[in-house]
Amino acid sequence: MSRRALPLVFVASVEQPELDEADEHHLRKALRLRDGDAVGLSDGKGHWRQARLGSDAVEVDGEVTFESAPTEPLTVGFCPIKGERSEWFVQKLTELNVDRIIPLISDRGVVRWNEQRSAKLAARFRVTVREAAMQSRRVWLPTVEAPMSVGDALALPGAALADPDGRVATSADRTLFVGPEGGWSDNERAGADLICLPGAVLRAETAAIAAAVVLEGNRGKSK
Amino acid sequence: MSRRALPLVFVASVEQPELDEADEHHLRKALRLRDGDAVGLSDGKGHWRQARLGSDAVEVDGEVTFESAPTEPLTVGFCPIKGERSEWFVQKLTELNVDRIIPLISDRGVVRWNEQRSAKLAARFRVTVREAAMQSRRVWLPTVEAPMSVGDALALPGAALADPDGRVATSADRTLFVGPEGGWSDNERAGADLICLPGAVLRAETAAIAAAVVLEGNRGKSK
Repeated sequence: MSRRALPLVFVASVEQPELDEADEHHLRKALRLRDGDAVGLSDGKGHWRQARLGSDAVEVDGEVTFESAPTEPLTVGFCPIKGERSEWFVQKLTELNVDRIIPLISDRGVVRWNEQRSAKLAARFRVTVREAAMQSRRVWLPTVEAPMSVGDALALPGAALADPDGRVATSADRTLFVGPEGGWSDNERAGADLICLPGAVLRAETAAIAAAVVLEGNRGKSK
Repeated sequence: MSRRALPLVFVASVEQPELDEADEHHLRKALRLRDGDAVGLSDGKGHWRQARLGSDAVEVDGEVTFESAPTEPLTVGFCPIKGERSEWFVQKLTELNVDRIIPLISDRGVVRWNEQRSAKLAARFRVTVREAAMQSRRVWLPTVEAPMSVGDALALPGAALADPDGRVATSADRTLFVGPEGGWSDNERAGADLICLPGAVLRAETAAIAAAVVLEGNRGKSK
Protein backbone atom coordinates (compact mmCIF):
# COMPACT_ATOMS: atom_id res chain seq x y z
CA MET A 1 0.00 0.00 0.00
CA SER A 2 1.32 3.46 -0.81
CA ARG A 3 2.50 5.76 1.97
CA ARG A 4 -0.11 8.37 1.09
CA ALA A 5 -2.95 5.89 1.33
CA LEU A 6 -2.15 4.61 4.84
CA PRO A 7 -3.25 6.43 8.00
CA LEU A 8 -0.16 8.05 9.48
CA VAL A 9 0.72 8.30 13.14
CA PHE A 10 3.74 9.94 14.76
CA VAL A 11 5.84 8.03 17.26
CA ALA A 12 9.00 9.00 19.13
CA SER A 13 10.95 6.21 17.45
CA VAL A 14 10.10 4.07 14.42
CA GLU A 15 12.61 1.49 15.69
CA GLN A 16 10.70 0.83 18.89
CA PRO A 17 7.34 2.44 18.26
CA GLU A 18 4.84 3.14 21.00
CA LEU A 19 1.54 4.81 20.22
CA ASP A 20 0.31 7.76 22.25
CA GLU A 21 -2.96 6.89 23.90
CA ALA A 22 -4.77 9.77 22.18
CA ASP A 23 -3.43 8.67 18.78
CA GLU A 24 -4.50 5.07 19.31
CA HIS A 25 -7.94 6.30 20.32
CA HIS A 26 -8.12 8.40 17.14
CA LEU A 27 -7.09 5.45 14.93
CA ARG A 28 -9.62 3.09 16.51
CA LYS A 29 -12.54 5.43 17.13
CA ALA A 30 -12.38 8.13 14.43
CA LEU A 31 -10.75 6.09 11.66
CA ARG A 32 -12.33 2.81 12.84
CA LEU A 33 -9.18 0.74 12.45
CA ARG A 34 -9.03 -2.69 14.07
CA ASP A 35 -6.33 -5.12 15.14
CA GLY A 36 -4.34 -6.21 12.11
CA ASP A 37 -5.06 -3.05 10.08
CA ALA A 38 -2.06 -1.35 8.48
CA VAL A 39 -0.82 2.09 9.54
CA GLY A 40 2.21 4.18 8.68
CA LEU A 41 4.56 5.28 11.48
CA SER A 42 6.82 8.31 11.33
CA ASP A 43 9.04 10.19 13.74
CA GLY A 44 8.25 13.49 11.98
CA LYS A 45 11.91 13.67 10.98
CA GLY A 46 11.80 11.85 7.69
CA HIS A 47 11.60 8.24 8.88
CA TRP A 48 8.65 6.10 7.89
CA ARG A 49 7.70 2.51 8.43
CA GLN A 50 4.65 0.37 7.88
CA ALA A 51 3.09 -1.37 10.88
CA ARG A 52 -0.09 -3.07 12.04
CA LEU A 53 -2.34 -2.35 14.96
CA GLY A 54 -2.04 -5.10 17.57
CA SER A 55 -4.16 -5.78 20.62
CA ASP A 56 -1.25 -4.99 22.91
CA ALA A 57 1.14 -2.86 20.91
CA VAL A 58 1.77 -1.70 17.35
CA GLU A 59 3.65 -4.35 15.33
CA VAL A 60 6.20 -3.21 12.76
CA ASP A 61 5.70 -4.69 9.34
CA GLY A 62 8.38 -3.39 7.00
CA GLU A 63 11.76 -1.70 6.75
CA VAL A 64 12.42 1.89 7.77
CA THR A 65 12.59 4.31 4.87
CA PHE A 66 14.04 7.81 5.06
CA GLU A 67 13.09 10.94 3.15
CA SER A 68 15.61 13.81 3.24
CA ALA A 69 14.56 17.13 4.68
CA PRO A 70 13.34 19.63 2.04
CA THR A 71 16.30 21.41 0.47
CA GLU A 72 14.29 24.57 -0.13
CA PRO A 73 12.20 24.90 3.01
CA LEU A 74 9.21 27.23 2.87
CA THR A 75 8.25 29.66 5.62
CA VAL A 76 4.85 31.33 5.99
CA GLY A 77 4.03 33.83 8.73
CA PHE A 78 0.52 34.88 9.71
CA CYS A 79 -1.10 37.07 12.35
CA PRO A 80 -3.01 34.98 14.87
CA ILE A 81 -6.57 35.97 15.60
CA LYS A 82 -8.72 35.31 18.61
CA GLY A 83 -10.32 31.95 19.24
CA GLU A 84 -9.88 28.74 17.34
CA ARG A 85 -9.62 30.21 13.87
CA SER A 86 -5.86 30.56 14.32
CA GLU A 87 -5.61 26.79 14.55
CA TRP A 88 -7.25 26.69 11.17
CA PHE A 89 -4.36 28.70 9.63
CA VAL A 90 -1.86 26.29 11.10
CA GLN A 91 -3.80 23.28 9.86
CA LYS A 92 -3.99 24.62 6.32
CA LEU A 93 -0.32 25.67 6.16
CA THR A 94 0.63 22.17 7.28
CA GLU A 95 -1.53 20.56 4.60
CA LEU A 96 0.13 22.77 2.02
CA ASN A 97 3.63 21.54 2.86
CA VAL A 98 4.90 24.67 4.56
CA ASP A 99 8.05 23.78 6.55
CA ARG A 100 8.13 26.59 9.06
CA ILE A 101 5.22 28.55 10.48
CA ILE A 102 5.72 31.90 12.21
CA PRO A 103 3.02 33.56 14.33
CA LEU A 104 3.52 37.28 13.72
CA ILE A 105 3.07 40.12 16.17
CA SER A 106 1.76 42.90 13.95
CA ASP A 107 0.83 46.53 14.60
CA ARG A 108 -2.74 45.88 13.45
CA GLY A 109 -3.05 42.35 14.80
CA VAL A 110 -5.92 41.71 17.19
CA VAL A 111 -4.13 39.52 19.72
CA ARG A 112 -2.56 41.40 22.61
CA TRP A 113 0.65 39.54 23.30
CA ASN A 114 2.35 38.73 26.54
CA GLU A 115 4.84 36.04 27.45
CA GLN A 116 2.24 33.67 28.84
CA ARG A 117 -0.05 34.00 25.83
CA SER A 118 2.87 33.51 23.42
CA ALA A 119 3.96 30.30 25.10
CA LYS A 120 0.40 28.98 25.29
CA LEU A 121 -0.32 29.75 21.66
CA ALA A 122 2.89 28.21 20.37
CA ALA A 123 2.17 25.05 22.39
CA ARG A 124 -1.38 24.83 20.99
CA PHE A 125 -0.09 25.33 17.46
CA ARG A 126 2.38 22.47 17.86
CA VAL A 127 -0.47 20.13 18.77
CA THR A 128 -2.43 21.30 15.71
CA VAL A 129 0.59 20.90 13.44
CA ARG A 130 1.11 17.34 14.60
CA GLU A 131 -2.52 16.39 13.97
CA ALA A 132 -2.60 18.10 10.59
CA ALA A 133 0.69 16.51 9.51
CA MET A 134 -0.67 13.06 10.28
CA GLN A 135 -3.83 13.82 8.35
CA SER A 136 -1.72 15.04 5.41
CA ARG A 137 0.74 12.13 5.59
CA ARG A 138 3.78 14.35 6.09
CA VAL A 139 6.89 12.62 7.41
CA TRP A 140 8.59 15.94 8.20
CA LEU A 141 6.77 17.84 10.90
CA PRO A 142 6.71 21.59 10.25
CA THR A 143 8.39 23.83 12.79
CA VAL A 144 6.29 26.38 14.69
CA GLU A 145 8.35 29.35 15.85
CA ALA A 146 7.58 31.37 18.95
CA PRO A 147 5.59 34.51 18.02
CA MET A 148 7.86 37.29 16.70
CA SER A 149 7.39 40.87 15.60
CA VAL A 150 7.02 41.65 11.89
CA GLY A 151 10.27 43.63 12.11
CA ASP A 152 12.21 40.67 13.48
CA ALA A 153 10.60 38.32 10.98
CA LEU A 154 11.56 40.59 8.06
CA ALA A 155 15.18 40.29 9.13
CA LEU A 156 15.07 36.60 8.09
CA PRO A 157 16.84 35.98 4.75
CA GLY A 158 14.60 36.55 1.71
CA ALA A 159 11.55 37.48 3.77
CA ALA A 160 8.71 39.38 2.05
CA LEU A 161 5.28 40.73 2.92
CA ALA A 162 2.15 39.78 0.97
CA ASP A 163 0.70 43.06 -0.30
CA PRO A 164 -1.51 44.08 -3.23
CA ASP A 165 1.16 46.56 -4.38
CA GLY A 166 3.83 43.88 -4.57
CA ARG A 167 5.60 42.06 -7.38
CA VAL A 168 4.79 38.53 -8.56
CA ALA A 169 6.48 35.75 -6.58
CA THR A 170 9.28 33.76 -8.20
CA SER A 171 10.73 30.37 -7.36
CA ALA A 172 13.43 32.19 -5.38
CA ASP A 173 10.82 33.34 -2.84
CA ARG A 174 10.50 30.99 0.07
CA THR A 175 9.55 33.19 3.03
CA LEU A 176 6.28 35.10 2.89
CA PHE A 177 4.21 36.82 5.57
CA VAL A 178 0.49 37.52 5.46
CA GLY A 179 -0.97 40.52 7.29
CA PRO A 180 -3.94 40.90 9.60
CA GLU A 181 -7.41 41.86 8.29
CA GLY A 182 -6.50 45.52 8.78
CA GLY A 183 -3.39 45.21 6.62
CA TRP A 184 0.23 46.10 7.39
CA SER A 185 1.05 49.39 9.06
CA ASP A 186 3.09 51.92 7.08
CA ASN A 187 5.92 51.22 9.46
CA GLU A 188 5.87 47.50 8.69
CA ARG A 189 5.68 48.04 4.92
CA ALA A 190 8.47 50.63 4.80
CA GLY A 191 11.42 49.18 2.93
CA ALA A 192 9.98 45.66 2.92
CA ASP A 193 10.01 43.42 -0.14
CA LEU A 194 6.33 43.17 -1.22
CA ILE A 195 4.75 40.26 -3.10
CA CYS A 196 1.20 40.28 -4.47
CA LEU A 197 -1.02 37.22 -4.19
CA PRO A 198 -3.44 35.98 -6.85
CA GLY A 199 -7.10 36.96 -6.50
CA ALA A 200 -9.16 39.97 -5.56
CA VAL A 201 -9.19 41.55 -2.10
CA LEU A 202 -8.48 38.53 0.13
CA ARG A 203 -9.44 37.84 3.71
CA ALA A 204 -6.46 37.06 5.91
CA GLU A 205 -7.29 33.34 6.03
CA THR A 206 -7.53 33.08 2.24
CA ALA A 207 -4.32 35.05 1.84
CA ALA A 208 -2.43 32.65 4.10
CA ILE A 209 -3.51 29.68 1.99
CA ALA A 210 -2.79 31.53 -1.23
CA ALA A 211 0.72 32.37 0.02
CA ALA A 212 1.41 28.72 0.77
CA VAL A 213 0.02 27.54 -2.58
CA VAL A 214 2.12 30.07 -4.49
CA LEU A 215 5.37 29.17 -2.68
CA GLU A 216 4.70 25.45 -2.87
CA GLY A 217 3.71 25.68 -6.53
CA ASN A 218 7.00 27.44 -7.30
CA ARG A 219 9.14 25.11 -5.19
CA GLY A 220 11.57 23.23 -7.27
CA LYS A 221 10.85 25.18 -10.45
CA SER A 222 14.31 26.75 -10.06
CA LYS A 223 16.00 23.34 -10.26
CA MET B 1 -9.86 57.08 -3.39
CA SER B 2 -8.95 53.84 -5.15
CA ARG B 3 -11.65 51.38 -6.16
CA ARG B 4 -10.16 48.66 -3.98
CA ALA B 5 -10.21 50.84 -0.89
CA LEU B 6 -13.91 51.82 -1.07
CA PRO B 7 -16.69 49.60 0.28
CA LEU B 8 -18.47 48.11 -2.73
CA VAL B 9 -22.17 47.56 -3.10
CA PHE B 10 -24.09 46.02 -6.01
CA VAL B 11 -27.05 47.84 -7.54
CA ALA B 12 -29.28 46.98 -10.49
CA SER B 13 -28.15 50.10 -12.37
CA VAL B 14 -25.24 52.46 -11.72
CA GLU B 15 -27.08 55.09 -13.75
CA GLN B 16 -30.01 55.27 -11.36
CA PRO B 17 -28.74 53.44 -8.31
CA GLU B 18 -31.02 52.24 -5.53
CA LEU B 19 -29.61 50.37 -2.57
CA ASP B 20 -31.16 47.14 -1.37
CA GLU B 21 -32.40 47.53 2.16
CA ALA B 22 -30.16 44.73 3.42
CA ASP B 23 -27.11 46.27 1.74
CA GLU B 24 -27.78 49.67 3.24
CA HIS B 25 -28.17 48.06 6.65
CA HIS B 26 -24.81 46.31 6.16
CA LEU B 27 -23.06 49.54 5.14
CA ARG B 28 -24.44 51.50 8.07
CA LYS B 29 -24.40 48.87 10.81
CA ALA B 30 -21.54 46.48 10.01
CA LEU B 31 -19.23 48.92 8.22
CA ARG B 32 -20.47 51.92 10.26
CA LEU B 33 -20.72 54.29 7.31
CA ARG B 34 -22.64 57.53 7.73
CA ASP B 35 -24.31 60.07 5.47
CA GLY B 36 -21.70 61.61 3.21
CA ASP B 37 -19.31 58.62 3.32
CA ALA B 38 -18.04 57.36 -0.03
CA VAL B 39 -18.95 53.97 -1.45
CA GLY B 40 -18.39 52.24 -4.78
CA LEU B 41 -21.38 51.06 -6.79
CA SER B 42 -21.30 48.27 -9.36
CA ASP B 43 -23.84 46.36 -11.39
CA GLY B 44 -21.70 43.20 -11.20
CA LYS B 45 -21.28 43.43 -14.98
CA GLY B 46 -18.17 45.57 -15.13
CA HIS B 47 -19.64 49.01 -14.41
CA TRP B 48 -18.40 50.98 -11.43
CA ARG B 49 -19.09 54.41 -10.06
CA GLN B 50 -18.30 56.32 -6.90
CA ALA B 51 -21.17 57.58 -4.76
CA ARG B 52 -21.98 58.88 -1.29
CA LEU B 53 -24.47 57.68 1.25
CA GLY B 54 -27.32 60.15 1.61
CA SER B 55 -30.10 60.34 4.17
CA ASP B 56 -32.72 59.56 1.55
CA ALA B 57 -30.89 57.87 -1.29
CA VAL B 58 -27.39 57.14 -2.54
CA GLU B 59 -25.92 60.13 -4.40
CA VAL B 60 -23.67 59.49 -7.38
CA ASP B 61 -20.34 61.26 -7.21
CA GLY B 62 -18.32 60.45 -10.32
CA GLU B 63 -18.43 59.09 -13.85
CA VAL B 64 -19.22 55.48 -14.72
CA THR B 65 -16.16 53.39 -15.55
CA PHE B 66 -16.26 50.03 -17.31
CA GLU B 67 -13.97 47.04 -16.97
CA SER B 68 -14.18 44.40 -19.71
CA ALA B 69 -15.15 40.87 -18.80
CA PRO B 70 -12.14 38.57 -18.23
CA THR B 71 -10.89 37.24 -21.55
CA GLU B 72 -9.71 33.97 -19.99
CA PRO B 73 -12.47 33.13 -17.52
CA LEU B 74 -11.67 30.57 -14.82
CA THR B 75 -14.02 27.80 -13.74
CA VAL B 76 -13.72 25.82 -10.51
CA GLY B 77 -16.07 22.99 -9.57
CA PHE B 78 -16.42 21.55 -6.09
CA CYS B 79 -18.58 18.98 -4.34
CA PRO B 80 -20.98 20.62 -1.88
CA ILE B 81 -21.07 19.26 1.64
CA LYS B 82 -23.77 19.40 4.25
CA GLY B 83 -24.45 22.53 6.25
CA GLU B 84 -22.92 25.94 5.85
CA ARG B 85 -19.42 24.87 4.97
CA SER B 86 -20.39 24.80 1.30
CA GLU B 87 -20.98 28.54 1.45
CA TRP B 88 -17.41 28.84 2.61
CA PHE B 89 -16.16 27.26 -0.66
CA VAL B 90 -18.19 29.71 -2.67
CA GLN B 91 -16.95 32.65 -0.64
CA LYS B 92 -13.29 31.68 -1.08
CA LEU B 93 -13.61 30.97 -4.81
CA THR B 94 -15.16 34.40 -5.25
CA GLU B 95 -12.34 36.09 -3.34
CA LEU B 96 -9.86 34.29 -5.57
CA ASN B 97 -11.33 35.74 -8.76
CA VAL B 98 -12.92 32.57 -10.08
CA ASP B 99 -15.41 33.52 -12.81
CA ARG B 100 -17.66 30.48 -12.82
CA ILE B 101 -18.45 28.14 -9.95
CA ILE B 102 -19.93 24.70 -10.54
CA PRO B 103 -21.46 22.61 -7.75
CA LEU B 104 -20.61 19.03 -8.72
CA ILE B 105 -22.71 15.93 -8.21
CA SER B 106 -20.09 13.28 -7.52
CA ASP B 107 -20.27 9.53 -6.88
CA ARG B 108 -18.66 9.98 -3.47
CA GLY B 109 -20.24 13.32 -2.59
CA VAL B 110 -22.21 13.46 0.63
CA VAL B 111 -25.17 15.52 -0.55
CA ARG B 112 -28.10 13.50 -1.88
CA TRP B 113 -29.44 15.54 -4.75
CA ASN B 114 -32.96 16.18 -5.91
CA GLU B 115 -34.45 18.96 -7.95
CA GLN B 116 -35.65 20.96 -4.95
CA ARG B 117 -32.31 20.73 -3.16
CA SER B 118 -30.42 21.72 -6.32
CA ALA B 119 -32.51 24.82 -6.82
CA LYS B 120 -32.28 25.80 -3.15
CA LEU B 121 -28.53 25.34 -3.03
CA ALA B 122 -27.87 27.29 -6.23
CA ALA B 123 -30.03 30.15 -4.89
CA ARG B 124 -28.14 30.21 -1.58
CA PHE B 125 -24.81 30.18 -3.41
CA ARG B 126 -25.84 33.18 -5.50
CA VAL B 127 -26.49 35.15 -2.32
CA THR B 128 -23.09 34.14 -0.96
CA VAL B 129 -21.34 35.03 -4.21
CA ARG B 130 -22.88 38.48 -4.20
CA GLU B 131 -21.79 39.19 -0.61
CA ALA B 132 -18.30 37.82 -1.19
CA ALA B 133 -17.86 39.78 -4.42
CA MET B 134 -18.74 43.02 -2.61
CA GLN B 135 -16.28 42.17 0.15
CA SER B 136 -13.60 41.46 -2.46
CA ARG B 137 -14.41 44.53 -4.58
CA ARG B 138 -15.16 42.54 -7.72
CA VAL B 139 -17.08 44.39 -10.42
CA TRP B 140 -17.82 41.18 -12.32
CA LEU B 141 -20.04 38.87 -10.34
CA PRO B 142 -19.05 35.21 -10.76
CA THR B 143 -21.61 32.86 -12.27
CA VAL B 144 -22.95 29.96 -10.20
CA GLU B 145 -24.14 27.08 -12.35
CA ALA B 146 -26.89 24.69 -11.38
CA PRO B 147 -25.40 21.51 -9.86
CA MET B 148 -24.20 19.11 -12.55
CA SER B 149 -22.73 15.61 -12.61
CA VAL B 150 -18.96 15.19 -12.87
CA GLY B 151 -19.49 13.48 -16.22
CA ASP B 152 -21.40 16.45 -17.63
CA ALA B 153 -18.89 18.90 -16.18
CA LEU B 154 -15.97 17.02 -17.75
CA ALA B 155 -17.59 17.54 -21.14
CA LEU B 156 -16.87 21.27 -20.81
CA PRO B 157 -13.90 22.39 -22.98
CA GLY B 158 -10.52 21.94 -21.24
CA ALA B 159 -12.01 20.54 -18.04
CA ALA B 160 -9.71 18.58 -15.69
CA LEU B 161 -9.94 16.86 -12.31
CA ALA B 162 -7.63 17.73 -9.42
CA ASP B 163 -5.88 14.48 -8.51
CA PRO B 164 -2.56 13.58 -6.84
CA ASP B 165 -1.62 11.46 -9.89
CA GLY B 166 -2.06 14.37 -12.27
CA ARG B 167 0.27 16.63 -14.22
CA VAL B 168 1.26 20.17 -13.24
CA ALA B 169 -1.20 22.87 -14.34
CA THR B 170 -0.21 25.25 -17.13
CA SER B 171 -1.55 28.65 -18.09
CA ALA B 172 -3.75 26.89 -20.64
CA ASP B 173 -5.75 25.25 -17.85
CA ARG B 174 -8.78 27.25 -16.87
CA THR B 175 -11.36 24.69 -15.74
CA LEU B 176 -10.56 22.51 -12.74
CA PHE B 177 -12.73 20.37 -10.49
CA VAL B 178 -11.99 19.36 -6.93
CA GLY B 179 -13.32 16.08 -5.53
CA PRO B 180 -15.11 15.20 -2.31
CA GLU B 181 -13.22 14.10 0.82
CA GLY B 182 -13.51 10.49 -0.36
CA GLY B 183 -11.90 11.30 -3.70
CA TRP B 184 -13.11 10.66 -7.25
CA SER B 185 -14.59 7.30 -8.17
CA ASP B 186 -12.73 5.16 -10.71
CA ASN B 187 -15.56 5.86 -13.08
CA GLU B 188 -15.11 9.61 -12.77
CA ARG B 189 -11.33 9.46 -13.18
CA ALA B 190 -11.40 7.13 -16.19
CA GLY B 191 -10.13 9.02 -19.23
CA ALA B 192 -10.21 12.39 -17.45
CA ASP B 193 -7.38 14.92 -17.68
CA LEU B 194 -5.80 14.95 -14.19
CA ILE B 195 -3.97 17.90 -12.60
CA CYS B 196 -2.09 17.70 -9.30
CA LEU B 197 -2.30 20.51 -6.77
CA PRO B 198 0.58 21.81 -4.64
CA GLY B 199 0.87 20.49 -1.09
CA ALA B 200 0.54 17.20 0.75
CA VAL B 201 -2.74 15.30 1.13
CA LEU B 202 -5.31 18.12 1.05
CA ARG B 203 -8.75 18.35 2.57
CA ALA B 204 -11.44 19.17 0.03
CA GLU B 205 -11.76 22.77 1.24
CA THR B 206 -8.01 23.38 0.97
CA ALA B 207 -7.93 21.75 -2.46
CA ALA B 208 -10.65 24.08 -3.74
CA ILE B 209 -8.68 27.13 -2.68
CA ALA B 210 -5.45 25.69 -4.04
CA ALA B 211 -7.13 25.04 -7.40
CA ALA B 212 -8.30 28.65 -7.61
CA VAL B 213 -4.88 30.03 -6.59
CA VAL B 214 -3.11 27.91 -9.19
CA LEU B 215 -5.46 28.89 -12.04
CA GLU B 216 -5.51 32.55 -11.03
CA GLY B 217 -1.72 32.61 -10.59
CA ASN B 218 -1.29 31.23 -14.11
CA ARG B 219 -3.91 33.49 -15.67
CA GLY B 220 -2.41 35.80 -18.19
CA LYS B 221 1.01 34.13 -18.13
CA SER B 222 0.26 32.82 -21.60
CA LYS B 223 -0.07 36.35 -22.95
